[in-house]
Amino acid sequence: MKIFLAVSFTSKVDNEGNVNAAYRSDIEALIQKLEEENYEVYCALPSENWKINNQNPIMLLRSELKNLDDADIFVAVLDKTISAGVQLSTGYALANKKRIIQASIIGTKLGWANNALAGFENISSVNFEFYDELGAQLHELIRR
Amino acid sequence: MKIFLAVSFTSKVDNEGNVNAAYRSDIEALIQKLEEENYEVYCALPSENWKINNQNPIMLLRSELKNLDDADIFVAVLDKTISAGVQLSTGYALANKKRIIQASIIGTKLGWANNALAGFENISSVNFEFYDELGAQLHELIRR
Repeated sequence: MKIFLAVSFTSKVDNEGNVNAAYRSDIEALIQKLEEENYEVYCALPSENWKINNQNPIMLLRSELKNLDDADIFVAVLDKTISAGVQLSTGYALANKKRIIQASIIGTKLGWANNALAGFENISSVNFEFYDELGAQLHELIRR
Repeated sequence: MKIFLAVSFTSKVDNEGNVNAAYRSDIEALIQKLEEENYEVYCALPSENWKINNQNPIMLLRSELKNLDDADIFVAVLDKTISAGVQLSTGYALANKKRIIQASIIGTKLGWANNALAGFENISSVNFEFYDELGAQLHELIRR
């Protein structure tokens, strides 16, 4: 089963475009946990070597959307800063009738649209405190 | 021809949820101009009486998406603050292969994803200074 994992990217990098170390290790732990449960995981961060690459954003975005087309489950990780990319891909997943899970860090106040989405019958929500626990929470939710 | 006009909403209201007067008059001028050019325009703001209505966000969002399904052209107005709803509906429009126009206020630095989208062949971009001029700019772009 293939998971498309949509997470904040450009708000989590240093001046040289490298993903912050603590955030990288959070996302790595999450992906590792999901892979241990035998999910195939696509996430832009490892796919782009944990670095903003502006050389051909058009091709990169097309490639991301292709990966989303191929995914069985779309997981959006929402935090306090709205991610333009996560929101965009959520809308794309919604139109493509993917199974959607919105995961939000405890304490995050969802905006109007994401709050409304949480009430759609094909969309699940999960709140988490630590990324390394989110993997198990997602697996629990998916196998239910 | 029907235009779905996606604009910031929740970041443009006062404490009681009413859309700020100056912003309302900007959007009214834009819609009026488009209607004068014989477009049918859907926009959440007038549709929801220029007020955040949290009574049934699920039904409201479903109704918005239905209007997007029915639209011929999707116009996203981007400003400095990222709108979760505008981004979500842009992704939805993209998956549904709508003709998309990204309109941004001069001086707005687009994020990675919107910048990449601007390079897609079925997506047009327009920069504007004043809302009352944007209507004419959109009409010019659409009839081309």
